[in-house]
Amino acid sequence: MPESFTPRQALQRARHDPQPLDANDWRGVIGAFTNGAFTDAQMAAWLMARVLHGISVDEAVALTDAMLHSGTQLTHKDSAAPVVDKHSTGGVADTTTLIVAPLVASVGLVMAKLSGGSLGHTGGTLDKLAAIPGFRTALNADTFLAQTRQIGVAIAAATRELVPADRLLYALRDHIELVDDTALIAASIMSKKLATGATHLVLDVKLGQASILGDDSKTRALAQLCVAIGKAHGRHVTAVLSDMNQPLGPAIGNALEVRAAIDVLAGRTFGRLGELSLKLAAELLHQTGVPFDTAYQQVSDALHSGAAIDRFAQLVAAQGGDATVVADPTAVLGLGEPVAVWAPSQAGTVTAIDTRRLGVLARELAGADMNLRAGLTTNLTLGMASDTVVVALYTDNPAQVAHATAVLDAAVEIADGPVQEPPLIQTVIR
Amino acid sequence: MPESFTPRQALQRARHDPQPLDANDWRGVIGAFTNGAFTDAQMAAWLMARVLHGISVDEAVALTDAMLHSGTQLTHKDSAAPVVDKHSTGGVADTTTLIVAPLVASVGLVMAKLSGGSLGHTGGTLDKLAAIPGFRTALNADTFLAQTRQIGVAIAAATRELVPADRLLYALRDHIELVDDTALIAASIMSKKLATGATHLVLDVKLGQASILGDDSKTRALAQLCVAIGKAHGRHVTAVLSDMNQPLGPAIGNALEVRAAIDVLAGRTFGRLGELSLKLAAELLHQTGVPFDTAYQQVSDALHSGAAIDRFAQLVAAQGGDATVVADPTAVLGLGEPVAVWAPSQAGTVTAIDTRRLGVLARELAGADMNLRAGLTTNLTLGMASDTVVVALYTDNPAQVAHATAVLDAAVEIADGPVQEPPLIQTVIR
Repeated sequence: MPESFTPRQALQRARHDPQPLDANDWRGVIGAFTNGAFTDAQMAAWLMARVLHGISVDEAVALTDAMLHSGTQLTHKDSAAPVVDKHSTGGVADTTTLIVAPLVASVGLVMAKLSGGSLGHTGGTLDKLAAIPGFRTALNADTFLAQTRQIGVAIAAATRELVPADRLLYALRDHIELVDDTALIAASIMSKKLATGATHLVLDVKLGQASILGDDSKTRALAQLCVAIGKAHGRHVTAVLSDMNQPLGPAIGNALEVRAAIDVLAGRTFGRLGELSLKLAAELLHQTGVPFDTAYQQVSDALHSGAAIDRFAQLVAAQGGDATVVADPTAVLGLGEPVAVWAPSQAGTVTAIDTRRLGVLARELAGADMNLRAGLTTNLTLGMASDTVVVALYTDNPAQVAHATAVLDAAVEIADGPVQEPPLIQTVIR
Repeated sequence: MPESFTPRQALQRARHDPQPLDANDWRGVIGAFTNGAFTDAQMAAWLMARVLHGISVDEAVALTDAMLHSGTQLTHKDSAAPVVDKHSTGGVADTTTLIVAPLVASVGLVMAKLSGGSLGHTGGTLDKLAAIPGFRTALNADTFLAQTRQIGVAIAAATRELVPADRLLYALRDHIELVDDTALIAASIMSKKLATGATHLVLDVKLGQASILGDDSKTRALAQLCVAIGKAHGRHVTAVLSDMNQPLGPAIGNALEVRAAIDVLAGRTFGRLGELSLKLAAELLHQTGVPFDTAYQQVSDALHSGAAIDRFAQLVAAQGGDATVVADPTAVLGLGEPVAVWAPSQAGTVTAIDTRRLGVLARELAGADMNLRAGLTTNLTLGMASDTVVVALYTDNPAQVAHATAVLDAAVEIADGPVQEPPLIQTVIR
């Protein structure tokens, strides 16, 4: 029983006993760590021992459950429609959430999305939405739930009441170099997703350049584990593993990505960004019992009919944003002209792209004061002729152009072609 | 090189690489932990990982060296005579230090003993000396060294400058349940001993009841490792493994043990306490090149000639104590009559003694204000007839007598005999 948890026994066992712990053991440890009865140093030693012994799938389920119970959980009892959510491991030029959220709402699902901070090399959804004048992401739980009932979609910042154990545990993991353990990552992701109360979840997992673990086989294992944890908690979970060896869409940077999302929603562009968005949305609809091909056709129709962009405008308006962004994103987002355009100096074929480095470059162009309108637009694709590449740079600081040029020269490899473009979707784990 | 130590790399390596670390690695970690660059939580995770991978003999040597270099070290450059030291893992009714120290000085060695705090179930040497009116154990390094040159013996409290890493590391080990790791114990013991600058060291290691690790084979391994560490540092080291299945001497408690030591030095008693003291002293003399039998005869002669007790009186006087304690210990130490005498209620043979429990009982009789004159005297020996047992209780608090009676009833097993008395010396590791 968790009541009988003592640091002494837990540490002795962690040191001497490689056998898996049960759900009560995990709840005892997480509870004591969260309330301070198990100190940082004790948890550090304990966690290192558990990681070295290896954390089983059942233990990852138990850890997720323990973390979930460290805080409050949202419930959507009144919702007639299935409540869905989406998690991304973080892509570059990847603004699928801004497309998928209104899209699934427009086909009758409820997207109740709570977002945390952004990852190191990618902008977070909240940063992107902050580029829309007036848009509020700080909603209290009642407002958030009411909006999901009214228009089927809300995107807000996760509150501190949700999975407080995750914040504490992540800070400790970062301090003791345990951020990249698969079981601990899976429990962190899934506890936060389960706490939002969604019954249907799609995981958008990136492989290749800019993958979360820097290694495709580990990333696949992470996706498998996340699906297993979600299913063990009675949720529908699908992981879509897609390629990130090239930028997903035509823009990297907060306001630039909002415009890219609107362009897809408005039917002005489509490309890989549009394709992945439809696949993710279709997987969520498929989870509710619709055959996949039918689901795909339904979301594709909603995109092309304008239903999805109408829902996006409602979302922006409901959260205080300037909904005219839909009609003229460039003007409303305050996007000017690029300060410079880069193109490769060599003739040849684009044979490799350091996608992660491009994500970091967009952040560098934003500068210390986080200029939301900075970044770059790109038509970079593997296998394209180098003389067709156009990368445009947006920044308040023209002194950054020389740096950006050097970064791009190194990040885009030009050699003799041809190069096969990798398939967009590599695996779907249902 | 230690200069290149980074917490991130050290933690990654501890997690992923079971290979032993080299001396520079250990010095880097201990240095960073001591100066705060490696936090408690980081060290906790790191140390747990290293313990789970297993710490080799070479690593224990390297750790000892790193700890040794965390503080100052004493040197005895001017000493014509070999400088010796003695460490005990902590016995019950064991006051050999008060006998061995003046004894080896009286045969021409220099005993420069710095003592730490006492262990859980045994009184420390400093507590015992504090029972002698006026005795000072807080000596600065110059005074301490001068006294060893003048009379060949000094016993003082270890200063904070000596092996500061050990205090920090022990506190952390205690906090994360790593106190009983053999390599960490050995490094802790040996770093403190090596720092006092002695070139010759005897380790008095207890087996059986009240052994340091509660397990004879682990305790033997610890003794082996301590000897190996000392030899790797160019010192003479001998471990004498002796039996602790019965109290070593006739008294447990600070002042009572001082009187017991004086009684041996004065030739009034001898017994197992006298025998072990001679063996330990002879081993030190043997290390300087004297054949063991000759060495034993020499220290035995020094005991019986009165040379040893004369040196004890000089030691007491040099450190401000009342040297008349030698002539009338009972009066000078303020020892009164026992408040009660216990004897077994059953007829039979003493077949087992919970020696550790008797040590704890002596502390309980001293009470919260640490009455130095409390404790018990005992003639308990395995195999003796129960009707010859006499245990006398000394305490300021007569209310403790009922508790002591219950403890003794449980701690002394009376059954049908006969029982073989275990040999005093079980192994000598040279």
